[in-house]
Amino acid sequence: MPDEALVALAERLQGICLGRSLTVGVAESCTGGLIGAAITSVPGSSAYFLGSLVTYADDAKVELLDVPRSTIESHGAVSAQAAMAMATGARERLHATTAVGVTGIAGPDGGTPAKPVGLTYIALAGPAEVEVRRLVLAGDRAAVREAAAAAALAWLIEASEA
Amino acid sequence: MPDEALVALAERLQGICLGRSLTVGVAESCTGGLIGAAITSVPGSSAYFLGSLVTYADDAKVELLDVPRSTIESHGAVSAQAAMAMATGARERLHATTAVGVTGIAGPDGGTPAKPVGLTYIALAGPAEVEVRRLVLAGDRAAVREAAAAAALAWLIEASEA
Repeated sequence: MPDEALVALAERLQGICLGRSLTVGVAESCTGGLIGAAITSVPGSSAYFLGSLVTYADDAKVELLDVPRSTIESHGAVSAQAAMAMATGARERLHATTAVGVTGIAGPDGGTPAKPVGLTYIALAGPAEVEVRRLVLAGDRAAVREAAAAAALAWLIEASEA
Repeated sequence: MPDEALVALAERLQGICLGRSLTVGVAESCTGGLIGAAITSVPGSSAYFLGSLVTYADDAKVELLDVPRSTIESHGAVSAQAAMAMATGARERLHATTAVGVTGIAGPDGGTPAKPVGLTYIALAGPAEVEVRRLVLAGDRAAVREAAAAAALAWLIEASEA
């Protein structure tokens, strides 16, 4: 069961999206399905949530979300460019009004001085534009993943209310 | 954070898959990302877990998992046929050794006399064949979803050990 804080965010998002006839899609890497699980923990979520592409492998990002392989080779799978391509790909593949893409280093391994554990990029693709945010989240693997999922849901709320 | 029982199953699955160089893909409907979230809660899961296609909308099942639209129209999205097509689609799209597909009615709404809340089909697609199991799971929405995710993980373990 997802964390109560995530479920509360998902309930808020659902209320806004149903009221405005918006649909949502998700592309997840480090969160691994946590965002989709939180959203779908709320009854009635099928009225606005189309799906989540959990692309853990690089090939899945390329083939299922149309992330250019050159983007991963040049900037890495954890990069602003990859997050933006993931969000754009999820929005197009799922035919959603808005999609969010999340890629990060949840740890405990995989961090480097340039890309430490906790580094997370979240991108939001809407009808008009794609934006990206860079976060460095604190805590262990579970805490980083939950915080990344919460930030993605909060941004979806913010964008849907705008 | 996924339930501890799910994480324990994911840890067991990872140990077996790493030892035997197997890869795993997932297609989720009613579980909404819970299986992917449990698998990726374990550090090192990227060595065998390729991704999960959380296809909540019927169009996503058709377009992203190659479930024939005629299957959904004839048998419903919650059917043995749909589960088998989801597992097969996930295995092919993710290039996995084994993939599991889960579709069910988590409730509280959506049940009928023929397809009650708790009805869940889980299919497993491996190199040689596709099998499907029909379960009727007890409890509320959260309990049905957790039990469905646990059954899927347990079957992946069983198939990977065989």
